[in-house]
Amino acid sequence: MKRSQLLVPTLKEAPAEAQVVSHILLLRAGMIRKVAAGIYNFLPLGWRAVRKVEQIIREEMNRAGAQEVHMPVVCPAELWQESGRWTKYGPELLRLKDRKDTDFCLGPTHEEVVVAMVRADVRSYRELPLNLYQIQTKFRDEIRPRFGLMRGREFIMKDAYSFDVDQAAAMVAYQKMFDAYGAIFRRCGLEFRAVEADTGNIGGSSSHEFQVLAESGEDLIFACDACTYAANAEKAAVGKRGETTESQSFGDQRRKEKEVVATPGKGKVEEVAAFMGASAREFVKTLIVRVDEFRERSAGKPVAGPRERNGEPDGTEGATHTMLAALCVRGDHEANPVKLKLLLGAGTVELASDEEVTRATHAAVGFAGPVGLDLPVYVDHDAAALETFISGANQTDAHVKNCVWGRDAKPTQVADLRVAAVGDPCPRCADGHLKTHRGIEVGHVFYLGDKYSRAMNAVYQDAGGNDAPFVMGCYGIGVTRTMASAIEQSHDKDGIVWPMSIAPFHVAILPLLSPTGDGAKTAAIADEMERALEARGVEVLVDDRDERPGVKFKDADLIGLPLRVSIGKKTLETGKVEVKWRSQKEAVLMAPEEAVAWIAAEVAKAVEI
Amino acid sequence: MKRSQLLVPTLKEAPAEAQVVSHILLLRAGMIRKVAAGIYNFLPLGWRAVRKVEQIIREEMNRAGAQEVHMPVVCPAELWQESGRWTKYGPELLRLKDRKDTDFCLGPTHEEVVVAMVRADVRSYRELPLNLYQIQTKFRDEIRPRFGLMRGREFIMKDAYSFDVDQAAAMVAYQKMFDAYGAIFRRCGLEFRAVEADTGNIGGSSSHEFQVLAESGEDLIFACDACTYAANAEKAAVGKRGETTESQSFGDQRRKEKEVVATPGKGKVEEVAAFMGASAREFVKTLIVRVDEFRERSAGKPVAGPRERNGEPDGTEGATHTMLAALCVRGDHEANPVKLKLLLGAGTVELASDEEVTRATHAAVGFAGPVGLDLPVYVDHDAAALETFISGANQTDAHVKNCVWGRDAKPTQVADLRVAAVGDPCPRCADGHLKTHRGIEVGHVFYLGDKYSRAMNAVYQDAGGNDAPFVMGCYGIGVTRTMASAIEQSHDKDGIVWPMSIAPFHVAILPLLSPTGDGAKTAAIADEMERALEARGVEVLVDDRDERPGVKFKDADLIGLPLRVSIGKKTLETGKVEVKWRSQKEAVLMAPEEAVAWIAAEVAKAVEI
Repeated sequence: MKRSQLLVPTLKEAPAEAQVVSHILLLRAGMIRKVAAGIYNFLPLGWRAVRKVEQIIREEMNRAGAQEVHMPVVCPAELWQESGRWTKYGPELLRLKDRKDTDFCLGPTHEEVVVAMVRADVRSYRELPLNLYQIQTKFRDEIRPRFGLMRGREFIMKDAYSFDVDQAAAMVAYQKMFDAYGAIFRRCGLEFRAVEADTGNIGGSSSHEFQVLAESGEDLIFACDACTYAANAEKAAVGKRGETTESQSFGDQRRKEKEVVATPGKGKVEEVAAFMGASAREFVKTLIVRVDEFRERSAGKPVAGPRERNGEPDGTEGATHTMLAALCVRGDHEANPVKLKLLLGAGTVELASDEEVTRATHAAVGFAGPVGLDLPVYVDHDAAALETFISGANQTDAHVKNCVWGRDAKPTQVADLRVAAVGDPCPRCADGHLKTHRGIEVGHVFYLGDKYSRAMNAVYQDAGGNDAPFVMGCYGIGVTRTMASAIEQSHDKDGIVWPMSIAPFHVAILPLLSPTGDGAKTAAIADEMERALEARGVEVLVDDRDERPGVKFKDADLIGLPLRVSIGKKTLETGKVEVKWRSQKEAVLMAPEEAVAWIAAEVAKAVEI
Repeated sequence: MKRSQLLVPTLKEAPAEAQVVSHILLLRAGMIRKVAAGIYNFLPLGWRAVRKVEQIIREEMNRAGAQEVHMPVVCPAELWQESGRWTKYGPELLRLKDRKDTDFCLGPTHEEVVVAMVRADVRSYRELPLNLYQIQTKFRDEIRPRFGLMRGREFIMKDAYSFDVDQAAAMVAYQKMFDAYGAIFRRCGLEFRAVEADTGNIGGSSSHEFQVLAESGEDLIFACDACTYAANAEKAAVGKRGETTESQSFGDQRRKEKEVVATPGKGKVEEVAAFMGASAREFVKTLIVRVDEFRERSAGKPVAGPRERNGEPDGTEGATHTMLAALCVRGDHEANPVKLKLLLGAGTVELASDEEVTRATHAAVGFAGPVGLDLPVYVDHDAAALETFISGANQTDAHVKNCVWGRDAKPTQVADLRVAAVGDPCPRCADGHLKTHRGIEVGHVFYLGDKYSRAMNAVYQDAGGNDAPFVMGCYGIGVTRTMASAIEQSHDKDGIVWPMSIAPFHVAILPLLSPTGDGAKTAAIADEMERALEARGVEVLVDDRDERPGVKFKDADLIGLPLRVSIGKKTLETGKVEVKWRSQKEAVLMAPEEAVAWIAAEVAKAVEI
């Protein structure tokens, strides 16, 4: 295809609106244009890249046995009322009314619609498993749309939903999607990690984010330097800890009784430790947390009495409680309430209010500790490993030292309850340690269980003739975000460096001589190579504009097609064209027919499935 | 692909909601399901057919030099305010507000967005011509969504917009699209007509509807039985008329003076004619019409004085008028105000109010006539050809007979001003006569001129360095409607009969024996044929369910794949499978390998470009 027949309005300068690399380069390369905040036009080159990502996704979803369907953008409120999300979903859900004043929303995701579809038409276990997907325009009314396609309001998403008879079958579907996602992002030419993510109340490895590694990523990932283990910051587990730590400064005082020390105005760990001539590593930091939707099975002490959950069926029975608890970690560590939530199977774990803290500790905020506290005490391994420790004394302006676990305070449970740190042992392998990366979430696989099918009364008949709710999973890929993440991961100061498989075209051909000189000759060579390459399935963009070579080179670097062929004065002298990878500095000289064969082979290699 | 792995919930009965054939069969064949009024889910089979239509459109648009882009579903009101359509577009435009209370609409069409895109990035005549298209979900809040996909609210549309330097260049773009549309609908296997349509104020053949012929079509089309001429009812021209008609009953009275006859209470043509012993063919029927936005150039008589148009620039200069006029047609014909509008280049031509009629004719409504009327008189050829005629007398309860054109009434202009009728001479060829058809509009090509580019100040720099507005065309295809229209056109009492090119699959293979009998053998033959056919690019759906042959045959007819292969008891005896076209009654027996070769050849023939 000829550049002159394509709308590619490249820009010399980055528009002020753009901050991140993908946004800047997509604008500069004439691939997208802003229509409104978080809403974009895709111009021909940008759209070609999106369509390639779509096609890879489609092929791998079909290969994994998923079936493509198409659900509406405009979804009726009544389905969202059934699931309870009409009221629970925040203002990101764009609600609207039609001319008859009926409520609708623009679907940000389609659990409700797909459950209603399957509920109406699937009746028997014989019709399962079922996995339905679509590739479709979605809308989420982000409060701060930013970073171009990375956090837009209107975007293209692949969303899939699996329906199975039970959890075991659902996990088979989950694994198929997990594998398909790996294949998709590999084929897109991306470096990524499948990262364990928090699943709310559901335990097990039943939620993974697929994160493209890029310095500009919004998400923090912990990944093992020896095995494939990776998890997001909320979820990253810490591997086997060392044995009990010999207390350093208080080593010979271990049989001393605990001693309350006045620490007026000193609430911070570092201040108190310094004041006592100790380090933060000898301190036990205590958070008072409020555990909601906690099911009675351990020593929880109800605060507000039993209460029913607020009308949302979730497949479990019985009353739930709210309780306060203490979460203890070592002074140099950071507590992770999400881990406590998972440990307890609670709905939420949040910091208690100042009032609740004061009531529970009989002290001002900042002086809580496990000693003499009438609350369940959950202790991280590293804190529990201290021979003696300092902590808040549950008295205003006082701490207590020489504390010994068991003698002075009894842990309700010892577990992994802190945020991972660089260098922590890997929870999966023997040798590895955790490193951090920045990531861009491009996909998410999630085991849903029967949350939606129960709420919406979507049941099938099992082999025994009884109704049972479908067991579901959901699986999303941000199509437009995947395209942008490829740019975040692969670019240089001059522009984009596309992976071959999702590049708008495979090859840029630059005939360099001006029409007033020998331009007709270089143009003829370009045309001939274009024909020969296209006949072999290679997608070619010929820059046939009447522009100086410098302009053509700059634009080619900006647009970032993987291969570039230059045809200039030397070509006419030597019969050779210059072939160069966008990612490399050095060019190679080849006869045109040789270049055609070589390029066709390289492209076939790079895009083959 | 195996039927057991595909969600195809066929129904025995047509749901009550469905009236037209395509709606009934799409529901019964498990291809679509209603989500809300005019909003549908596409299930796997239905979506495959839509995607095939999309792909044919994409290929032909690209071949015609159009470039695929993607514009948003959610469009900012500010662009629609620029064009003036934010207020002019009725309630079909679904308006909404985002969380910041900014106005948006769901784009029913994208002139505004595409004009803003081109305005921002195209500066020179050197960058033209340009034709941008997208295939995208659209929303129109129809007051009475009905007929399934035929008149839905959310639907998929291909919309294209051409930008050129002048009208001549724009008409080249128009012709390219006209030709591409022909190729698209031919490849979709549809019988259609390109039908001249009204263009508003713009003369010439600059608007064509592409109408799929089907008895259930909402639109009336006149088409020549000898040439390709076709036009919609508003636009259909009547060819060369006969010579002056000898008045039949009044043949010997032609020199008689006109004579007023009392016709108390008789306002209808048939009543008056019967009362006078004449036929409706001897009558001149007169409509008093109000001509708005009429530019002074003929004998128009301003009614309300000059007034400016209401703020909408349309590329023309000068004040416009409103006038009353008489539109005369023969008593057995129907007047066509659209033709008068086109003749006069007026904005609208509508029936005058009763009050205006009374003021102009000094008589009650129903007694208007051209004799002695102080208004411009526009006369259809057939009415003007009468030697003598009867008409209203412009007196209440009176008609006048023995009228002679010229002597008693002077036509301001004689032209084609009536609705065409079956048997009328073709306006294009010498021999043909017009026939009527019912049609479904699936595409529309439209010359826009500079209506939008002027309103939105979208200009390019011409060769002389001056700013000039882009000259545009717009071109739409209803993708989902095209799919449904194929069913309206091609079905029988048992189900759909898909054209090969857009069928969800090419071939249905039915292994007929039960698993408890010799089912494994017929299944093995089916599997082997499936593999062999898929290796040749043929799309196969194997009905591998444990169902009786009768159920499989019924479902196969309902779903309507073009070819069917049955593998039953006789196959095991004779080694032959039964191959049958869905559209034919007779089956042919072939060995499986012979059937594979034959089917592959037939499919290749039918879908080749």
